[in-house]
This record gives sequence, structure tokens and C-alpha cells, in this order.
Amino acid sequence: MHLSSVLYALSDPVRLSIVSELNKLGERTCGGIDVSVVKSTKSHHVRTMREAGVVHVRVQGTQRLLSLRKHDLEERFPGLLHAILQAYEGTEGQKVSE
Amino acid sequence: MHLSSVLYALSDPVRLSIVSELNKLGERTCGGIDVSVVKSTKSHHVRTMREAGVVHVRVQGTQRLLSLRKHDLEERFPGLLHAILQAYEGTEGQKVSE
Repeated sequence: MHLSSVLYALSDPVRLSIVSELNKLGERTCGGIDVSVVKSTKSHHVRTMREAGVVHVRVQGTQRLLSLRKHDLEERFPGLLHAILQAYEGTEGQKVSE
Repeated sequence: MHLSSVLYALSDPVRLSIVSELNKLGERTCGGIDVSVVKSTKSHHVRTMREAGVVHVRVQGTQRLLSLRKHDLEERFPGLLHAILQAYEGTEGQKVSE
């Protein structure tokens, strides 16, 4: 898990909104995550985050379940995810979370 | 200044090393920043960071002086730059700063 890859994975408004949603609601199906992009774009975003180590993807039957790798991120980069989520929720996140 | 653009500007090892150097040493000339990339690549990295609002560029004669926009970043995203620099210096940064 590299810092530059983690920051890249979080450097997109759609990916930030997915991370914020997973942080608040815990594990979700890929289809259950509400973002305004087509399915293939959502899959691409999920792959970017999975490859950077930001999300974990668990396959259950025909569903893909996503979760935020909070513990791993905190262990590797203490305070980083918290600072980014706080920055997100204090600004761009308002339209999503309020 | 958008969070996703700031994170993108910091999502590259060379840009992270420039930010870390500016954080430690204060304003530097563009040429005085020691990174192992050619001049045109360095200029590209500087432009990316300037456009995201991460660095300020001041022209003095034939020189370009770079500084980190710490105060603006802290005002807009409290704690974010600190968390990223701490993550950088705790991991990838070791080979640069130690």
C-alpha cells in the first residue's frame, strides 16, 4: 500500500463519495452504492480503489460486497483517512451527506 | 481549491517529495529543488500543484520561487496537509529525509 496510490484513489469526487458512504454505512453491495455514474464507470472506480488498498471486495454469489479498509489504512498511515474524510464532509461532502 | 484536486496534486511520489522539501525548507527556487526528473517534468509537476492551489509560484527576475500554501490549505482543510506529510515522512519519505 503506497501513499501516492492511496491519495490517487481518493483524488476523484465519485471515489470520495463512495469512500464516505462506506465509512458511514459499512459493507455495501456494489449496486447498492448510490452514485450518479454508469455501472462500468463505477466498476472502474472500485477497481482503482481496490488496487490501491482502499477498499476490500468480497464476492458472495452474484454480488460484490465492498468495504473500506479502515483498519489497514489506519495502521499504515495513522490519521490520514480521518483527515481526508473530515475535509470531504466539511466541503464537497455537504451536498451528499446533508 | 477542491479536495479532489489537492489529493490529485499530492498523489505522485515526485510531487510529494517537492511538497515535503518546501515544508521543511520554505520558499525555494524551482531549480533549487532536488528531484530526479528532467526540467520539463518538474515544470509539469509544479503546474499541477499550482493549479490545485498547493503551491504558490512567485516570479523574481528570471527565477521562479515556489512555496507551499500551508496557511490556505490549513484554513480550507484543517489537519489534511499535516496528516499527508506525516504519512509521507513515516514511509516513502524515509529515503529522502533520513
